Parts: sequence; C-alpha cells; structure tokens
Amino acid sequence: MEDLIEGLFAGVRSGDRTAVGRAITLVESTRPDDRHQAQELLERLLPYAGGAHRVGVSGVPGSGKSTLIDALGTRLTAAGHRVGVLAVDPSSTLTGGSILGDKTRMNRLAVDEDAFVRPSPSAGTLGGVISTTPQSITVLEAAGYDMVLVETVGVGQSEAAVHAAVDCLCVLALGGAGDELQAVKRGLLELVDVVAVNKADGAGERPARLAATELSRALPLLAPTAGGAPPPVVCVSALTGAGIDELWSCIVEHRRLLEASGALASRRAQGRLAWMRLLLERRLLERFDAQPGLAERRAELEQAVEQGRVTPESAVEALLQ
Amino acid sequence: MEDLIEGLFAGVRSGDRTAVGRAITLVESTRPDDRHQAQELLERLLPYAGGAHRVGVSGVPGSGKSTLIDALGTRLTAAGHRVGVLAVDPSSTLTGGSILGDKTRMNRLAVDEDAFVRPSPSAGTLGGVISTTPQSITVLEAAGYDMVLVETVGVGQSEAAVHAAVDCLCVLALGGAGDELQAVKRGLLELVDVVAVNKADGAGERPARLAATELSRALPLLAPTAGGAPPPVVCVSALTGAGIDELWSCIVEHRRLLEASGALASRRAQGRLAWMRLLLERRLLERFDAQPGLAERRAELEQAVEQGRVTPESAVEALLQ
Repeated sequence: MEDLIEGLFAGVRSGDRTAVGRAITLVESTRPDDRHQAQELLERLLPYAGGAHRVGVSGVPGSGKSTLIDALGTRLTAAGHRVGVLAVDPSSTLTGGSILGDKTRMNRLAVDEDAFVRPSPSAGTLGGVISTTPQSITVLEAAGYDMVLVETVGVGQSEAAVHAAVDCLCVLALGGAGDELQAVKRGLLELVDVVAVNKADGAGERPARLAATELSRALPLLAPTAGGAPPPVVCVSALTGAGIDELWSCIVEHRRLLEASGALASRRAQGRLAWMRLLLERRLLERFDAQPGLAERRAELEQAVEQGRVTPESAVEALLQ
Repeated sequence: MEDLIEGLFAGVRSGDRTAVGRAITLVESTRPDDRHQAQELLERLLPYAGGAHRVGVSGVPGSGKSTLIDALGTRLTAAGHRVGVLAVDPSSTLTGGSILGDKTRMNRLAVDEDAFVRPSPSAGTLGGVISTTPQSITVLEAAGYDMVLVETVGVGQSEAAVHAAVDCLCVLALGGAGDELQAVKRGLLELVDVVAVNKADGAGERPARLAATELSRALPLLAPTAGGAPPPVVCVSALTGAGIDELWSCIVEHRRLLEASGALASRRAQGRLAWMRLLLERRLLERFDAQPGLAERRAELEQAVEQGRVTPESAVEALLQ
C-alpha cells in the first residue's frame, strides 16, 4: 500500500498521464479502503497544489459546454498552457450530452499532448457536480496542469457546488426567439462571473447578439457578486472560434481583479468552507436515510404530506423518533 | 390542557382576535410541551384551513415591503376581504426594517378591523422565514382570513422557504441609477411569480419605469417557472397607491391560471414536500450540532479548512466519527 501511494505520488508529480488517471480513479472511489489511501495520497500532493486557474463551465443542456471547452482548451494549449479538464461522462447523464460518445465531444483536446481530459460519471454528485471535484483538481494541479476547466451537467444545485470549487464560473447562454429559448437558468445569475452567449455563428449570430445586449442591460439591475461589477457578457462561437479570445480575456481579467484585491485567497477559503458544509449536509442525510426501514417510512410520510393527510412538521417529528 | 385546546379552537373558529394571537404564539413556541399542544390544535384546525389565497412578499431591505403590504392589505379589506398578515418583527431583524417600531410600519392595517397583523421574530428561521409559517397560515385560514400575506426578511435562502409556503411569490424591486441600486436579488428570479417595481412616485417614477422595462425584457430570457409564462412586471407606489390595483390583478390572474390548469393543488403539495425537506435538513443539522463538544470541534475544523490545513473531505470524515 505504501508502494502504491508512493508510485502514484511520483507518477503524478512527474506528469505521467497513466498515474494521473489512476490517482483520480482512486480519489473518486467510494470504497472505504480506497478512501483511506486517497486521503494519504492527497495529503502528499496538497503542498504542490493550488497553482492552477480553476474555471467552471455551466449552462443549460444543449448550450454547447463540451464544444466550448474543446475550443477554449485548444486555444490555451496553443498559448503554452497545460490544461486539465474534468468533464461529465455523457453516457452517465440523465440530461443528455452527446450521444456520439466522449471522443467526439472534445475531439481536439482528447488528442492534445498538453491536455488531460477526464470524463467522470455524474453519479454520487452534489447536485450534478461530482463530490470529489476539489480532490481531482488537487491531482491535476500537482501534476503541473496550470489551467483546470470543470464542466457541470447544469442541473439542480450543481452551480452552488461548482462555484465553491473554482475561481471563476462561466455560464453559457443561448440566443433565441422570444419565449422558446431561455438564455440563462435563473438561479445561475446569483453565482456567475462571466456570461458567454454561445452559437453566435451563421443564422444564430443575430439572436445571440440580441440576447447578449439584453443580458448586458439586465445584469447591472441584479445584485452583484462579491467582485462588485456586473459579470461581463461576450458572444462566442465554439464552432468557428469567434469570440473565444475575448472570452478568455474576460476570465483572465476576472482573475486579475481577484488577485489585485486580495480576494482570490478568501474566495478559495470560502469555497472550501462551502464545500465542507455541502458535504456534511449530504453525508448526514445519507446516514439518516441509511437507517433500517427508514427509506420506506420516509416514502410513506412523504406521500401522506403530499396528500395533505399529515403536516410536514408532524412527518419530520415522526421521522426523527 | 384539553380545555385550553378546546377554548383556543373555538376562539379561532369564531374569529376571536385574542384567540388567534394566542394560537399563533403556541404554534411558534419551541417548548416540547407547547409543541405537543400545538400539534393537537393544528390537527383540529386543519379541516377548516386551505381556503386562503396565500401571497409571499419579498425583496431587498429598503424595497418597502411593509408599506406595500399596508397599501395592498387596505385595498383588499376595502374590497371585502379579510386579510391576515405574517410580518417580520423589525426589532428582531439584523437587516434593518423600520426603527420606528411595528405600529408605524403598517399603520392603516394595524387598526383595520378586517385585518390581523402578526409580527413574529425572525429567530429560529429557515433562512429568514419563520419555520412555523405554514402552521400560522393554518390558524389564520381556520379563523376565516381569506387572504394571507407573508412578509420575508429577504435574506439568505428565505425565498425557497417562502415559495414553499405560498401560492404566489411577489418580489419588490427598485429602480435606480446604474450600478448603485440593484432591482432584484438574483437568486429570487428563479422563484418569482410577480415582480413589482416599488417607489414609482415623484422623482422615482422614471427610474422605476426604466427598471420595469429592462426587467420585462430580461425575464423572458430566463428559464420559466412552472407556469410557463415569464412573471409580469408592474410599477407601483406603496406611498401614493398607484399601480396597487394592477399588482393585485396580476396576483389574481396568476391564481386563476394555477386553478384553471389544476396546478394549484400540485403546487401546494410540492410546497408541503419542499417544506418537509427543509425542516428535516435543519433538524438533522441542529441535532448533529447539539452533540457534546461538537460545536467546538466543528469550529476548529472549519478554521483549519479555511486556512487550507485540512481538506473539506477530511474535516467531514473527522466530524462524522
């Protein structure tokens, strides 16, 4: 076991791709003995972590998250960065993703020597973000990746979780005609640092520009994120590459402001605390639900509450006894 | 004890104001024996509840929630409604509220025979909504109030809780110059049914109309609530009464759509389930934190996580052991 950890540590530190993949697999494992080993490995890696610029990419299904990550990541490796990507395994999501399989989702990055794309199942998640995301980021950083892009499935409470794990949350929006298409999931606006209106190409360019204009007007009306200024809105096309440089400038500028104000360290500290609380709540609920017979009792009571036969307060009292 | 419950039940059902006040005090009590009695009373009242139109009023501090409730409530009693108000006791909130005391916050409703204004402390809340709000609504409904207005302090996660307790969530926004003033708290947009831009009077009218126009343009770009249509936006002045009728029409129309589509019953059922989950999470955390020595241990670990000495995962593992 010592040898295993020692081997993985050395492999990760030397940037060996197989070791990085195996380390993330270990970190993601839910088996108790793996967990113990994972903690040991992470403690050894931690002093070498923290160096990457961590960027989350969220957005409604169909907004083109993987295509954008492919375009942005390729742009970054061309500029000399080493790019780690924590992607969602499309075969495991309920919300779609490409049916063509992972290779075709990020086809340029997948064969890029300076990129490491890790698809992970979306099971065992904090509302759509895998609950070991910060640990996988540690592995990638210790392996020398200076840019980490985290894709989310964009459902449920995933944004709060990914926001806690990254330095900058970039949300993909879409232009569209009237009510048919919604640009941004409402709950996201609270957390977003940069908005990118995607698919601004061909016939899509005009609606994308319109949506960007409307969003630029609306965002200053909404409560600000910690930084104070409303998030910038840019039009991009992951397909043609238009606007990708501008998007990257916005993300870099966001980071520069965080560093200049000294807020980066506190944002990361707050993110770790938020992550700790999300994990604690989840584990307490899991442990509670794992009690013998409790799942059935809870289902019965939920039905009774739904039908109005029992009040929520009485149901909770009954469950806690 | 039987006599007490019997007396309160009869008093509430006959609309006796003293009995209604005492019943809500009992329902809000956290003492175990009071809780038991409260459950008994609520079980007797439940068959007579459910008849009111329940409307939540939220918005950033200073958006004029109590003044608006005063104007709207007075308009409703004049139209023959009996109006129950669950208000926030300003002396107990951290976020302000009037420093002039409760009487002056809703000065017309407070002396209106057809209204019952109940200020409650904001302590012991689900993110700013008192955790017994649905039970207080039951008391008011059983006492014959056919309109219930619920004020929230508008901080934290209070909107998710109030949304679970009402049929319609009305959010107050403010117009303003550029970045200085934010119209709507971002997280709210996910849950809002009707937006009212308040203080549309005098010099405030123009910025209010501008903010309303921007919000009307922006809201269709955001993901819809269950109803499908984007929430209507109206300009109001709680001071002059302008727009109050139009605001009320929007709230009535929202209810009509809910009833016509059969969605009212399912919204209430979903609200009860959501409330049950919020309560369960809160009680599990409370029970966990109440273990001897745990608060200190948690504070130590949170500090270590914040400083980066311990990972969130290790801290949670340590806490759960």
